[in-house]
Amino acid sequence: MSKLRAALLGATGAVGQRYLMMLSRHPTIELEVLMGGDSAGRAYGEAARWLVSEDIPDRFADRKVLPTDPRNAEGCDVVFSALPAEAASTVEPEFVKAGLTVISEASAHRLEEDVPLVIPEVNPDHLGLLDLQRKRRGWSGSLVATPNCTVTGLAMVLKPLSDSFALRRAIVTTMQAVSGAGFPGVPSMLIMENVVPYIKGEEEKVSDESRKILGTQSEIGIRSANLQIAISCNRVPVIDGHVETLYAELGKDIEPEEAVDCLNRFRGAPQELGLPSAPMQPIIVRPEPDRPQPRLDRLSGSVPGMSVAVGRVRRGLGRDSIQLTLVSHNTIRGAAGTAILTAELMDNKGQLGR
Amino acid sequence: MSKLRAALLGATGAVGQRYLMMLSRHPTIELEVLMGGDSAGRAYGEAARWLVSEDIPDRFADRKVLPTDPRNAEGCDVVFSALPAEAASTVEPEFVKAGLTVISEASAHRLEEDVPLVIPEVNPDHLGLLDLQRKRRGWSGSLVATPNCTVTGLAMVLKPLSDSFALRRAIVTTMQAVSGAGFPGVPSMLIMENVVPYIKGEEEKVSDESRKILGTQSEIGIRSANLQIAISCNRVPVIDGHVETLYAELGKDIEPEEAVDCLNRFRGAPQELGLPSAPMQPIIVRPEPDRPQPRLDRLSGSVPGMSVAVGRVRRGLGRDSIQLTLVSHNTIRGAAGTAILTAELMDNKGQLGR
Amino acid sequence: MSKLRAALLGATGAVGQRYLMMLSRHPTIELEVLMGGDSAGRAYGEAARWLVSEDIPDRFADRKVLPTDPRNAEGCDVVFSALPAEAASTVEPEFVKAGLTVISEASAHRLEEDVPLVIPEVNPDHLGLLDLQRKRRGWSGSLVATPNCTVTGLAMVLKPLSDSFALRRAIVTTMQAVSGAGFPGVPSMLIMENVVPYIKGEEEKVSDESRKILGTQSEIGIRSANLQIAISCNRVPVIDGHVETLYAELGKDIEPEEAVDCLNRFRGAPQELGLPSAPMQPIIVRPEPDRPQPRLDRLSGSVPGMSVAVGRVRRGLGRDSIQLTLVSHNTIRGAAGTAILTAELMDNKGQLGR
Amino acid sequence: MSKLRAALLGATGAVGQRYLMMLSRHPTIELEVLMGGDSAGRAYGEAARWLVSEDIPDRFADRKVLPTDPRNAEGCDVVFSALPAEAASTVEPEFVKAGLTVISEASAHRLEEDVPLVIPEVNPDHLGLLDLQRKRRGWSGSLVATPNCTVTGLAMVLKPLSDSFALRRAIVTTMQAVSGAGFPGVPSMLIMENVVPYIKGEEEKVSDESRKILGTQSEIGIRSANLQIAISCNRVPVIDGHVETLYAELGKDIEPEEAVDCLNRFRGAPQELGLPSAPMQPIIVRPEPDRPQPRLDRLSGSVPGMSVAVGRVRRGLGRDSIQLTLVSHNTIRGAAGTAILTAELMDNKGQLGR
Repeated sequence: MSKLRAALLGATGAVGQRYLMMLSRHPTIELEVLMGGDSAGRAYGEAARWLVSEDIPDRFADRKVLPTDPRNAEGCDVVFSALPAEAASTVEPEFVKAGLTVISEASAHRLEEDVPLVIPEVNPDHLGLLDLQRKRRGWSGSLVATPNCTVTGLAMVLKPLSDSFALRRAIVTTMQAVSGAGFPGVPSMLIMENVVPYIKGEEEKVSDESRKILGTQSEIGIRSANLQIAISCNRVPVIDGHVETLYAELGKDIEPEEAVDCLNRFRGAPQELGLPSAPMQPIIVRPEPDRPQPRLDRLSGSVPGMSVAVGRVRRGLGRDSIQLTLVSHNTIRGAAGTAILTAELMDNKGQLGR
Repeated sequence: MSKLRAALLGATGAVGQRYLMMLSRHPTIELEVLMGGDSAGRAYGEAARWLVSEDIPDRFADRKVLPTDPRNAEGCDVVFSALPAEAASTVEPEFVKAGLTVISEASAHRLEEDVPLVIPEVNPDHLGLLDLQRKRRGWSGSLVATPNCTVTGLAMVLKPLSDSFALRRAIVTTMQAVSGAGFPGVPSMLIMENVVPYIKGEEEKVSDESRKILGTQSEIGIRSANLQIAISCNRVPVIDGHVETLYAELGKDIEPEEAVDCLNRFRGAPQELGLPSAPMQPIIVRPEPDRPQPRLDRLSGSVPGMSVAVGRVRRGLGRDSIQLTLVSHNTIRGAAGTAILTAELMDNKGQLGR
Repeated sequence: MSKLRAALLGATGAVGQRYLMMLSRHPTIELEVLMGGDSAGRAYGEAARWLVSEDIPDRFADRKVLPTDPRNAEGCDVVFSALPAEAASTVEPEFVKAGLTVISEASAHRLEEDVPLVIPEVNPDHLGLLDLQRKRRGWSGSLVATPNCTVTGLAMVLKPLSDSFALRRAIVTTMQAVSGAGFPGVPSMLIMENVVPYIKGEEEKVSDESRKILGTQSEIGIRSANLQIAISCNRVPVIDGHVETLYAELGKDIEPEEAVDCLNRFRGAPQELGLPSAPMQPIIVRPEPDRPQPRLDRLSGSVPGMSVAVGRVRRGLGRDSIQLTLVSHNTIRGAAGTAILTAELMDNKGQLGR
Repeated sequence: MSKLRAALLGATGAVGQRYLMMLSRHPTIELEVLMGGDSAGRAYGEAARWLVSEDIPDRFADRKVLPTDPRNAEGCDVVFSALPAEAASTVEPEFVKAGLTVISEASAHRLEEDVPLVIPEVNPDHLGLLDLQRKRRGWSGSLVATPNCTVTGLAMVLKPLSDSFALRRAIVTTMQAVSGAGFPGVPSMLIMENVVPYIKGEEEKVSDESRKILGTQSEIGIRSANLQIAISCNRVPVIDGHVETLYAELGKDIEPEEAVDCLNRFRGAPQELGLPSAPMQPIIVRPEPDRPQPRLDRLSGSVPGMSVAVGRVRRGLGRDSIQLTLVSHNTIRGAAGTAILTAELMDNKGQLGR
């Protein structure tokens, strides 16, 4: 079977670089087209301010960056968008109108009611929205969004707790890595030997997106889950890997061991289908008292960085509450990895052109 | 009036150094006796592995470190103890039996029911326990404890919320500085570019000590406050200054502005009495969206490091809950500063020998 | 005597903020005028992205930022410029033409042959160039430059070595703090848990400026010192304080103790004149084997941050060479502090309008 | 062919863990015996304070740690020693007397004249000393030492410069990672946001060991190279990867491009023999102006971490001098990797029992 043909928008930025690396060794997707703004016309290796420790794969170093134009993606089965939010809001619809399937990492369209916001393990059924989307908008292509980097790990943990224990409220504090802010992102003078207790717009995103992802699909779009989330987002001097403490109030009494068991056993469509980027276990509960830690656990999983590491699962203030800590890799599971996994899922279901 | 004469136990350690610096410029306390274990017999400047950026004050550099023996504190009005917990458990009572007043930073005796655990702004009345303590134990001296570094800032914020809004539950996540672990403390290989989501024994201390401090004195000791605290303690790569996010459930509905007002207006005995180490305002609420930050706000207050900086005061999930973030200096307000302020308070009340 | 009246260009930037703090408590200089570009018309407290841990002094928080125009500095005795290089190249001459004395931190004019590049302890006589400058350029005011932050500490150490031991060659490696790059400056993703072995243009500046500063004044300008400097500039994850290792080849044999003595005894015009910002000892040699360290020693000196801390003075490969390590505060001694000290010196010599 | 059977001394420490990970996937060496001191008798997974981000390989987690006794290594072809220096000085000779081949990472025996101190690319011929060693000491086994972590990368760069351009003097400044100090090693309070300009004993080691490694073998042992090395060792807040700036004075004039070419083309015995742990290119010269950086380049090479990354090759103060910066992985190339490569080389030459 031939490979899926992919294009990448925003290819030279920090997020784009992560896509490029993950796709460079992908078994079923061939990254054929790199698009960029200011960098169009130059070789990728010259245009990108390279931030990854591995070198640019040879076959991409000399690849010419093309202007951001749907015509340059003609014939591509999927278009990954690593565009910043503002550019995404106008550029992505142009690609979709041209008949392309766009999977976007940008926040621009995540909360629009006919745009599926997908984590393949959590809400693969939300892709069913695409029919509604095409009908309503008259689009020939499709637009699928992936969540904010802080949401992904959290929603993956909330899902099994919600299904098994009727999750009602979540009180969350995050300690987020600087790579979540892109490049140049957080100035070193602000974050070194410091904690910044605020990330603009982040808390609203986590709450709104989590409730949409855990919501149920109806005829007229997604009905957000009836879940209350209070969150405090902090930036800490860590390069990759978001840490989140969760205090969860449930609809029934449980023992912490039941929660551990529930999280360890959680599986989703990607695992059942054996998708290439699916980790064998989406959530790995660590038994050590002092894990998960971002530096040690951000690359968790049989596909490195695609599993969420959880630890410190313990009782809350009542028998109907638990506390835990989670770590997820914000630029793999929280960005490119989930988008690629979404493409694999859509391909498996025949939703991509191939 | 002559100065209070003070002795310092554990003088050469990291905590002891902070006491020495704060007392070196104190208007009413004269640090006369430095005691140490292995370092006894040597000059302080040689015995201490000096960790403070300011140099050792000249008059202490050549001071001989004496063996840890109550006879060496004879004539001292107050003995500050910067001993580690294990040593404190046996050594401090010896000093008290010899008729001395010991103010201890160690955890050893904090939860004993006839040992006052004091933050002068929060529970100065708990010093009334000392009569009971002397009677029960047959001691001629007194033993007063100061709280864990994470507790102090938290309890100072919980106190006015409790008094004004009937605080019921607190869900807390901490991001604690490495200096809280003493010296050598946290290995750099563990904490650089990382978060460690666990500090042994810390969560129990925060919960138990906070409830004792906010408790009420009775004939038979302190009755802990009826307050529920859930807490997740994390170590972050910050040198000084603990950050804590607080989700507080109250007994009545309030507007966030009322909480801000309540915190800013909070005053205690040290402010009323004008004690030398009392900051004019124990809690300073910052209006900026991204404060407090440990590096910028740990030295808050008219007496640097003695005020708790609070920010991000906002509504929680209901009208009867609020969220906020606080920063306090863990080795000043969270250790030496509170102990010295306690000595000043006791002196003012005639509870020290002078 | 009335105070010197000062204006500040580039007042809202990171360097400008440091000037503002240092001048806010200056005994003989009154900062009267704050000028800025985009921020003109707003209150300083709103316009500045404040980066200093101390709060903005009240009297400046509400001060209106004025447009960068010589007319706004009318009546000022001295204009401090914290402008970036590009802006400085055109703006500063306009102020000088208007009759003002500009002391500039920018690199724009440092190497022009009739612009004195001054460290008051090292080459106060270079201010004599100002007559030549005025004559040649037809200016009514004066333009004085202060050196690059890496140069200042180095040149202060090279000066006494040069005078006493006929310094011939210097091989230098720097480990520079991120604050040297201004704000936003170095992205955290680049420097955390890393060393960047290159700072654009820095090595040329250190070499050229050092030789000019150590040069001798002649009828036609400064003749650079006949000194060879090889330098490797590195950025390290430190907030403030540049570290430099120096391997020095001298014109005669010496014992390391002679070098220590020479450095400790070094005094310059500011010390002789007792200028307000002059540290009692410009260079402090630390006896400990593991000093100087940026975090512990950057605030060295009786005027904090104005002394250079030196340590590890030891023999090189021959009897005519020595090695040492130095730390200087890059935004105090390496920027605002030296500029202010220069103003004090010029005032003392009657070179300012007052 | 059956695999080499290996034992590991000091298996639970930080260096031992790195050996274990590298050997866990080694094609020709089977790690059969783990020995430890206090940890003897326990399962490895419980005894080790695990510091590596990858989990302990399953087959080692349950492996029982044996007491440090030559009888436990009976039948092993090679014994890797990750012991600290003091223990190594007495323990290692016991193993050698028992007929075993010990390859040691400890400093204890490195400078003894009949102990080869080997970097396989640089001085494989020094293994010829083993005949002398056995004869002189009456040992039936062999003791081979690997160099200090700072020496290895440096000596690999000095070797081709010495062979091609008659290297005379090297002036070096290092910026060393904290993992070089083992565990617990450097306290976070000392190194965070700081540089420590001194590492006890390190400078002497670098100089003495480099000269021995570059020396020539004679009838009576190694004659150290006639090379002068001045060095300043600094600790910086980096986890892995030592950076070194080198100012090299040569015996002839060269162009920097010649040095680049010479370094890139350098090959040694491991490359010629195709040893499993040999990187294709021992030294990789990076063309970018701001490389090598420890975080980006420490895992350089076709065998990750086994190549030294070099950059910034440029002229020094004369045509007979060059400057450059190098990065090498201190716990791979600077420790376990070089020891394992040495075992591979000895095996290839029939110097191991197999």
